[in-house]
Amino acid sequence: MVKEKVADFKTTFKLKNGKHLEGFKLVYETYGNLNKDNSNAILVCHALNASHHVSGINAQNSKDIGWWNNMVGPKKPIDTEKFFVICANNLGSCFGSTGPSSIDSRTGKNFGSKFPVLTVEDWVNSQALLADKLHIKKFAAVVGGSLGGMQALQWAISFPDRIRHSIIIASTARLTAQNIAFNEIARRAIITDPLFHGGDYYSKDTYPKVGLSIARMLAHITYLSQDGMTEKFGRNLQSKENYSFSYDIDFQIESYLRYQGEKFSHTFDANSYLLITRVLDYFDPTEHFDGNLTKALKCVKAKCLVISFTSDWRFPPSHSQELVKALLENEVDVSYTEIKSANGHDSFLLEDPEYHQTIRSYLQRIKT
Amino acid sequence: MVKEKVADFKTTFKLKNGKHLEGFKLVYETYGNLNKDNSNAILVCHALNASHHVSGINAQNSKDIGWWNNMVGPKKPIDTEKFFVICANNLGSCFGSTGPSSIDSRTGKNFGSKFPVLTVEDWVNSQALLADKLHIKKFAAVVGGSLGGMQALQWAISFPDRIRHSIIIASTARLTAQNIAFNEIARRAIITDPLFHGGDYYSKDTYPKVGLSIARMLAHITYLSQDGMTEKFGRNLQSKENYSFSYDIDFQIESYLRYQGEKFSHTFDANSYLLITRVLDYFDPTEHFDGNLTKALKCVKAKCLVISFTSDWRFPPSHSQELVKALLENEVDVSYTEIKSANGHDSFLLEDPEYHQTIRSYLQRIKT
Repeated sequence: MVKEKVADFKTTFKLKNGKHLEGFKLVYETYGNLNKDNSNAILVCHALNASHHVSGINAQNSKDIGWWNNMVGPKKPIDTEKFFVICANNLGSCFGSTGPSSIDSRTGKNFGSKFPVLTVEDWVNSQALLADKLHIKKFAAVVGGSLGGMQALQWAISFPDRIRHSIIIASTARLTAQNIAFNEIARRAIITDPLFHGGDYYSKDTYPKVGLSIARMLAHITYLSQDGMTEKFGRNLQSKENYSFSYDIDFQIESYLRYQGEKFSHTFDANSYLLITRVLDYFDPTEHFDGNLTKALKCVKAKCLVISFTSDWRFPPSHSQELVKALLENEVDVSYTEIKSANGHDSFLLEDPEYHQTIRSYLQRIKT
Repeated sequence: MVKEKVADFKTTFKLKNGKHLEGFKLVYETYGNLNKDNSNAILVCHALNASHHVSGINAQNSKDIGWWNNMVGPKKPIDTEKFFVICANNLGSCFGSTGPSSIDSRTGKNFGSKFPVLTVEDWVNSQALLADKLHIKKFAAVVGGSLGGMQALQWAISFPDRIRHSIIIASTARLTAQNIAFNEIARRAIITDPLFHGGDYYSKDTYPKVGLSIARMLAHITYLSQDGMTEKFGRNLQSKENYSFSYDIDFQIESYLRYQGEKFSHTFDANSYLLITRVLDYFDPTEHFDGNLTKALKCVKAKCLVISFTSDWRFPPSHSQELVKALLENEVDVSYTEIKSANGHDSFLLEDPEYHQTIRSYLQRIKT
């Protein structure tokens, strides 16, 4: 049973894009207890569509199990008997922290299209304010998969003295053209949906359900591996013996994707989806270093653990290897492992003995 | 300079789905001359979005160069000084052959949603009728890339005595779940576009431009390789120095994809797009052989040449290898080569010395 908490920041929060927010809220959860010298805190950073509800049962909804429940908890790889774990819903998301669907106090209306486009740097800055509020000067570790891994990396860059370990899983130092291309199509599907209304659909009591659903179907393909999909769905037909010779659902994979798209469109805010895909696109620590990752990571002091999965074609092992190489060139203490998995990018969310043991062992040797 | 021809079939044409067409038209082009014993004919089969205009300059539009102009022509790999080359616009497409946008003579209106869903088998049957009309009893070869390769394979299955060689390039014996998933999302984008009007948009003087454009953007990603996209576009910004912090075009890849989608949406019919993606999904010679490709290809008598490209992730070399294995197990005379290329699935359309020399050499030894 976990109850969410709210941190309300009243100060002006400067953003990378030059704009600012006049205060903001972060919703977060914590697990375990902070030790005497506040040295056992781990920040878990979530990916695109997850929330602050990492582990356990949501006190307000008993069906809502945390998205990383297999990883975080008592005696689990991220052991909450040893560590004090924090996870905040990212700014701009839609699970309680300030985002496009929030009410702008200046106008009394939802931010909608007025909400600024954020960056991983902004997120990390907002998380640092939360750490201040909780009296955590230095995290034992910052951990995340996918977009969460980008935050773990950015923490090591933005706050080299406030993080002892950075654990970067199934992630990348920057998106490729193909990654950006998938995001762009997802955004087109949302923005061109007539119910998008330029991002200001809240007051019209509607939302771009169809566009958001297509965006999610597309993203879902990139989360699974080619082989995993073949094994799970193959060319199996959905409750029928023969083709329908129509554009209705014939194959199980069609049914599965439509279901995933539909489900997602009920729970996620379309503006947050646009925003977070843009956060992904814009992440690039090499931006002011002529694309040179080694130079970009010169400031890193944290020890790092980098983990990739063999069948992840969204952020393949080569991305992690490039990151590890750049860290090594900066004489950073970095461990790297490539986990065999048929589950594609989603592997970072799933239970796998080798993967879990790697995290467990790495964290066990951290002194608190 | 090539002029298209029209073959008008007045007979009832039975389809795999149990329905039939009361006659149909095929638009086609020919290159070179048929020899005395009609033994030098090659049928080229086109892929999703191409047409019968394979080579040379369209007599009606001097800017319209054939889609395989680098492959087909005098002294080219498919040498029209030796061979008589035919290519017909596939039934159901939108470049002149009967399709959803054609007028249904029974109603005087466009077929639209009434046009039947076809299969590769139907296409091959229609092409055989065209061959009859041209007095070609047996093709020297049937050649095609991607969906065209499926037709070349189906020819060897449907008409083992009417084809001497089957040349199957960058193709597959059946789509995977991932392939179907991409098609399904493309179809959702079209069908959910409010201007689709259930497929009957012609009479409303509109069409689902946005949906079709998204479908094309998505398909385009699968035509290029991850590395090819990185090399060509990387993270380059489009005519700007800094991020816009908006959902407008920032990256070159975004601009490129939007342009491709936009262009395509002006030239292709949305109903044809739905239909042809379904043709792809439904192709499966193993359908009545419990998924066993070796059994499905037992009837093949043609000699085969199978070609794949290393960076093709739509139909990776493993698909061709599976096909070659099944052909070998049937003691078919089959040659296979895997061409090194960074250009992904699109490689089959591009000029590559090794690729072109393979086709050239293979065809040179065919007696006519």
